Amino acid sequence: MNNSPTQKVKDIGEQGLLKIIQSFCPADIIGDDAAILTTTPEKSLIVTTDMLIDGVHFSDATTSPEDAGWRATAANLSDLAAMCASPLGITVGLGLPGDLNVNWVEKLYQGITQCLQKYNTPIVGGDIVQSPITTLSITAFGEANPNLIIRRSTAQIGDAIVVTGIHGASRAGLELLLNPEIGKNLKTQEKASLITAHQRPQPRLDVISILSEILLPTTPTLHHPISGMDSSDGLADAVLQICHASQVGAILEQSKIPTPSAFKHWLTPERSLNYALYGGEDFELVLCLPPKIASVLVEKLGTGAAIIGKITPGSEVIVKDENEKIPNQVLTLSQGFQHFS
Amino acid sequence: MNNSPTQKVKDIGEQGLLKIIQSFCPADIIGDDAAILTTTPEKSLIVTTDMLIDGVHFSDATTSPEDAGWRATAANLSDLAAMCASPLGITVGLGLPGDLNVNWVEKLYQGITQCLQKYNTPIVGGDIVQSPITTLSITAFGEANPNLIIRRSTAQIGDAIVVTGIHGASRAGLELLLNPEIGKNLKTQEKASLITAHQRPQPRLDVISILSEILLPTTPTLHHPISGMDSSDGLADAVLQICHASQVGAILEQSKIPTPSAFKHWLTPERSLNYALYGGEDFELVLCLPPKIASVLVEKLGTGAAIIGKITPGSEVIVKDENEKIPNQVLTLSQGFQHFS
Repeated sequence: MNNSPTQKVKDIGEQGLLKIIQSFCPADIIGDDAAILTTTPEKSLIVTTDMLIDGVHFSDATTSPEDAGWRATAANLSDLAAMCASPLGITVGLGLPGDLNVNWVEKLYQGITQCLQKYNTPIVGGDIVQSPITTLSITAFGEANPNLIIRRSTAQIGDAIVVTGIHGASRAGLELLLNPEIGKNLKTQEKASLITAHQRPQPRLDVISILSEILLPTTPTLHHPISGMDSSDGLADAVLQICHASQVGAILEQSKIPTPSAFKHWLTPERSLNYALYGGEDFELVLCLPPKIASVLVEKLGTGAAIIGKITPGSEVIVKDENEKIPNQVLTLSQGFQHFS
Repeated sequence: MNNSPTQKVKDIGEQGLLKIIQSFCPADIIGDDAAILTTTPEKSLIVTTDMLIDGVHFSDATTSPEDAGWRATAANLSDLAAMCASPLGITVGLGLPGDLNVNWVEKLYQGITQCLQKYNTPIVGGDIVQSPITTLSITAFGEANPNLIIRRSTAQIGDAIVVTGIHGASRAGLELLLNPEIGKNLKTQEKASLITAHQRPQPRLDVISILSEILLPTTPTLHHPISGMDSSDGLADAVLQICHASQVGAILEQSKIPTPSAFKHWLTPERSLNYALYGGEDFELVLCLPPKIASVLVEKLGTGAAIIGKITPGSEVIVKDENEKIPNQVLTLSQGFQHFS
């Protein structure tokens, strides 16, 4: 490292910090949604951690403490799902100002446990400390079959790209919460469903057993692990991260990307695509796998799941519209936001 | 829960918060230094987490970033040692203000990895986020033989109480850093050794292999797991916590508590005992086990280790001085500090 002693965190941003930190970690251990530790030949331990700060990642203005707890938990469980790992437990670290209402803490834990209950996952430990700013740090760990672990770096040219569900709903829900008036042409049920998608996202842990069922009998014939990650930072980001890690490109077909049915009569095609690609926090899985297996998977997953494109040679990720209503787009990582700005 | 909606975190303190949080966790999973998850009959996964806040748990005024990193790591590894678990890895969550020097982050990671290297333990994941206050959250996980896991709640009347090393050194080191003039009668080497004890505490992971060696052949004849914890919050706190969890009392002999050799010519007996009992952050283990096994353990551990008392009926923890220089003391948990005050 040759950083000047006066260089600030904001000068180098998240990517700069990650480069420094990676120099302190084992080379092969960083780059997926969670870390893999193979403790026995039959099982790997999968670990992921998230830190959330009041005013940066959640805020009483837009998020109830129950929803903040649910969403933080869902994000961590989604990282496990993205590695094909079943959750074993989570730890919760909490930094709290003395002036915070006790009620807020109870509601946060209610949200956390409501999300965990669905997956029969316990809170197994934690820490509470005094802090000037409310801070939540969740670490989730799970176990996976080493042969079925999903990685970002193993997508192959010709793989079909599967999404396990619709995209754009969480972002639309957030917009409706921030500006209720934009929803005047939506049915009550449509509005409620979009807002729920934002407040109570569902990590796709259910995909693990379906994938296991399909893949285990064929594992000996798979020449590489399934590639993929979750779409928590947006569908575009997920495809770009996978392509970057696998040194491949991709073509996505705009019309194949599943979006909430309300989008068709509510949003312009441009806005609908924008929400689907960049909205984020849909917590679906984006998987790259041989086309035949992909078709079986999509059929078993049912409504919302779809093959949206394929892995190509090169490095470009292109979104095409066969109807030519929207110009072809070349996606780039820099369209994502940088923290510390 | 029947908290009023306006009740503040500072009104109920750490203990009040813990009671609320425990109601959301499995009943048997909280109460030791770390959580236990038995994933296979042969191995348990042990998890522990700590959150540290700038200005509360560390400060540039008294702690270099390297030392802050080392100490946070040592505290987590000590929690694993306190459960008889060998470390597998840690995750590091970091909340950073944009104005922080990048250099600070590098030095923090240098301290973390210096501590980890001794125990061949990797950083396997983490998260970096923007925060108005520098925040460090470390989760450590390890594995243990389920038959050898150390618990707080299983001390038996008649058990000998063993400390794995000297107590009071870390506190003395802190005092020397805060008020260098109080060290004028100490040799340079004595001062350096006390300050190092504070800045670079050594988690007692080396005790695990010694304990395994002694206990494994006799496990079938042990009627209960070894009881114990680490002395990170002070020796008095450790004995009190063990006695409270095990519903027993204890007698400690003041003269048997090992302290740094410099204490004898430097501190009054009262201050020496105070540092040893309440100083904290010595990161030794306090173990309760049958007297014969205790003697073998102390011999194998060598210098610093000692049998300092025994587990008794009742609930009182008494510190006796055979020379009657210091009056007998009855220790109570309330002598420990409360956070959120």
